[in-house]
Amino acid sequence: VLGGMGPVATAKFFQRLVELTPAKTEAEHLRIFVDNNVDIPPRGPFFFKGGANPVPGIVAAINQLSAIGADFVTLPCNSVHVFYDEVSPQIAIPWLSMLDAVSQDLRALGLAAPIVLGARVTVAMRLYSRLLPRCVSLPEPIYQHVYEAIDLITANQRVPESVIKPIVQGISNHRHLTDGILLACTELSACADDLGKLGLPVLDSTEIYARQTVKCALETSSTEPVIPSRERKQEAVD
Amino acid sequence: VLGGMGPVATAKFFQRLVELTPAKTEAEHLRIFVDNNVDIPPRGPFFFKGGANPVPGIVAAINQLSAIGADFVTLPCNSVHVFYDEVSPQIAIPWLSMLDAVSQDLRALGLAAPIVLGARVTVAMRLYSRLLPRCVSLPEPIYQHVYEAIDLITANQRVPESVIKPIVQGISNHRHLTDGILLACTELSACADDLGKLGLPVLDSTEIYARQTVKCALETSSTEPVIPSRERKQEAVD
Repeated sequence: VLGGMGPVATAKFFQRLVELTPAKTEAEHLRIFVDNNVDIPPRGPFFFKGGANPVPGIVAAINQLSAIGADFVTLPCNSVHVFYDEVSPQIAIPWLSMLDAVSQDLRALGLAAPIVLGARVTVAMRLYSRLLPRCVSLPEPIYQHVYEAIDLITANQRVPESVIKPIVQGISNHRHLTDGILLACTELSACADDLGKLGLPVLDSTEIYARQTVKCALETSSTEPVIPSRERKQEAVD
Repeated sequence: VLGGMGPVATAKFFQRLVELTPAKTEAEHLRIFVDNNVDIPPRGPFFFKGGANPVPGIVAAINQLSAIGADFVTLPCNSVHVFYDEVSPQIAIPWLSMLDAVSQDLRALGLAAPIVLGARVTVAMRLYSRLLPRCVSLPEPIYQHVYEAIDLITANQRVPESVIKPIVQGISNHRHLTDGILLACTELSACADDLGKLGLPVLDSTEIYARQTVKCALETSSTEPVIPSRERKQEAVD
């Protein structure tokens, strides 16, 4: 797990990996390496303010995880997947794509047009539009409240009613266009309960990705790796 | 963090490290490496059944964490501290002792005679008796229920009333000897609520160790490491 983007999401993701593993004893659990790497430059400032490029740090960290024994890598952060195509050829192990995992899961549930709640990069780059062409973006003023919620969660703070309420209202105004709410920022899991009150299915990208990661790890440990980089990349392009 | 002993405790410990870090932004959080290393041979079978020695695996894993950049190591597992003196001279970074951290915290709270609830090794080797000479051991039949609870938690299962009740009763029968309940197995945090009903202070070794780890990490990142192995070992012997 290359984590730290952000740390709260990484902790939640790691906890879910452990809880979702069908193990009766310690030895039946998965060996998991986590790099809670908060030194990777933030994705938003790189795109929007000319900040440092996160790619070299991501490549170095993944190759370090590979060197100590990781078979494949997961990055529990939707935004960072904007670098998937650039990073993949530079790393020694496959990167299990969160965008692929989540999109496949949604399609399997018969959901095609979720409202995407994400961080700045995920929203601005429309990261889910390629795989879920009918997914719904909200007007920018509503996303400002979403970004505010994400920043509060990263700072270990509660999201107050004054931030949640306009998000809920904004979703409610667009519910005729949508069939679900996709929490496409791993930090947003903390808001799942409030958003669940709208009566739309709430799909948590962290939870879906954790399930796929455990599945992949169990398959990898029993046979050969199931997600060779090259094939994976081609699938994403199709 | 050299974890995996067990995985549920490691996930809880990592989560608490993130939550306890006074950070407002991602970059202010701690870089944390976790090896959820379930390949280390179990501590109990080594002592009680002549199983494989965990020491070489512990040494290798800590030195690998050091090689990728860790400044010091924590092992959120009370039992594994039985190897502290043997492992310390073989590792490149200091090991922050959980037994020291917990004992110091209890003494600071004015508690000297806690009932120690732990796993087989912690109980049989009386790991806390050196640092807290007045700590209280329960009769073995009660510990059998404690071990059962730990095994259930490791298997991601709920601890039923039939297991909790005799533990609560056993503690109640010894409360004239004690001033608190020390959860000296990281998996036992899951039982804290039930044990809290006895009216004795419940001290959670995972929580205390997490607080000390964050403190140590913040001091280490601002100055030089604060727990050189040699000094630390001497303090433990004093």
